[in-house]
Amino acid sequence: MDTKFFLGIVLAIVVVFAGAAVYSGLTKNQTAVAAPAAGDRDVLYQVSTIDALMQGVFDGIRPVKEIRRQGDFGIGTFDALDGEMIVLDGVVYQAKADGRIYPADDRMTTPFATVTFFDQDRTEVTEQPMNLSEFSSAMERRLPTGNMIYAVRMHGTFPSVKVRAIPAQHKPFPTLAEASKNQSVYTYTNSTGTVVGFFTPVFFRGVNVAGYHLHFISDDKKTGGHILDITIPAHTTVVYDITPGFAMALPTSGDFTGVDLSKDLTGDLAQIEK
Amino acid sequence: MDTKFFLGIVLAIVVVFAGAAVYSGLTKNQTAVAAPAAGDRDVLYQVSTIDALMQGVFDGIRPVKEIRRQGDFGIGTFDALDGEMIVLDGVVYQAKADGRIYPADDRMTTPFATVTFFDQDRTEVTEQPMNLSEFSSAMERRLPTGNMIYAVRMHGTFPSVKVRAIPAQHKPFPTLAEASKNQSVYTYTNSTGTVVGFFTPVFFRGVNVAGYHLHFISDDKKTGGHILDITIPAHTTVVYDITPGFAMALPTSGDFTGVDLSKDLTGDLAQIEK
Repeated sequence: MDTKFFLGIVLAIVVVFAGAAVYSGLTKNQTAVAAPAAGDRDVLYQVSTIDALMQGVFDGIRPVKEIRRQGDFGIGTFDALDGEMIVLDGVVYQAKADGRIYPADDRMTTPFATVTFFDQDRTEVTEQPMNLSEFSSAMERRLPTGNMIYAVRMHGTFPSVKVRAIPAQHKPFPTLAEASKNQSVYTYTNSTGTVVGFFTPVFFRGVNVAGYHLHFISDDKKTGGHILDITIPAHTTVVYDITPGFAMALPTSGDFTGVDLSKDLTGDLAQIEK
Repeated sequence: MDTKFFLGIVLAIVVVFAGAAVYSGLTKNQTAVAAPAAGDRDVLYQVSTIDALMQGVFDGIRPVKEIRRQGDFGIGTFDALDGEMIVLDGVVYQAKADGRIYPADDRMTTPFATVTFFDQDRTEVTEQPMNLSEFSSAMERRLPTGNMIYAVRMHGTFPSVKVRAIPAQHKPFPTLAEASKNQSVYTYTNSTGTVVGFFTPVFFRGVNVAGYHLHFISDDKKTGGHILDITIPAHTTVVYDITPGFAMALPTSGDFTGVDLSKDLTGDLAQIEK
């Protein structure tokens, strides 16, 4: 590998906090408006935290329109945990529990999402078929560091893709673990499509899913969801976008301010994600 | 407390990644330049992570000039762990192990810093004298949520302020725990000055110092450092800036990519910080 020089990156992030009733004490009256600046491509933009989602903070706080403004690639969920979000080539899709994919409207909202602008920095090619955990281990040995955020994209015909989507929840919201008991699971064979997701470092535990968090969408945009497992064939090209910038918007309204985010929920999360 | 409405905030963050040799594989060639946009005041901007600093990642990666661009208020350290950084009213100070304060040059660099633009959102007034842990407990009961980032500022004549500063380290860098064994500790009585720092939520563990992380600088700009303990008199006004946005720049060069950031260092950190 060559050692090159980092010539300079300028990142600009414009985060629009939409109008929302605010938890008492968390009040702001700001109306400053800024135009999006160029060069904001190497930032993982995140709405809320994974542990808040784990605790049932499912109220959508940011519109899909803003998500598209922060990235053209990514994953998340929707208001009331209504399905899995896939953002691919600038289009936002909703994989619902009925097993279908719907285009997401700009006015829909999300309680948790992570997006970036995808730029290819690095590619790896799988040498043999592997499942999700084998893929994770194999890439751990190949990536230059596990202390970095990477956006991950791969396209192929996958012998087996097991995905889930969770139906919309109702208030009072359950925890993610409770909600996932009613999840729909679909296993597709020889499905051609794209894996969309991120690798985040272990030190992001609580904030994001440490390790890989991947969603799937078929080329015909008919099937997809949160990947529980996948068979990745040999000779699949895995594209990585190295993303050293991180931007997060914490909710200032709704359940977020009241839930207990002090516990380490890594173990609970691992059970739900697989 | 009133429940008000969040009228709308637009945040823009411009993160300038200065030229630096990049760990092989972590390469970028981007030259996009963006002008800082208005309205970027409610973002905590952070360079690197506290656990990286704990592990001895002391190479300065961002210039003071950039720190000033991201905020007028905050704390951090300098290249090689040479003293404590205090950013107050847009001026960057260096509290060195010799017990003196120096103005920081724009070309100096930092391996870890957190800054924001300080705007008063909320004030609390202490009812009785308290030390640092009593202050932390008292404010825990008063703040609307512990799941939020707050910038914290208070001015007064403090009966006792115990501060530390660590002398510049040499390569190969030790851990922060090792380096802190040679720290200089100064205790000032009836010192008039400003406490500058942040409260970050427990779920930031590994990323930032969960709870309060406070530095001190005297009004005459002669003494200060990282606060190990402080006696806060009754009737002190504590000003909070609610900061729902978080932006972090991970190092793409130097030791960061190689250190083990998988462990929970919360306990080690608590020993060093007090």
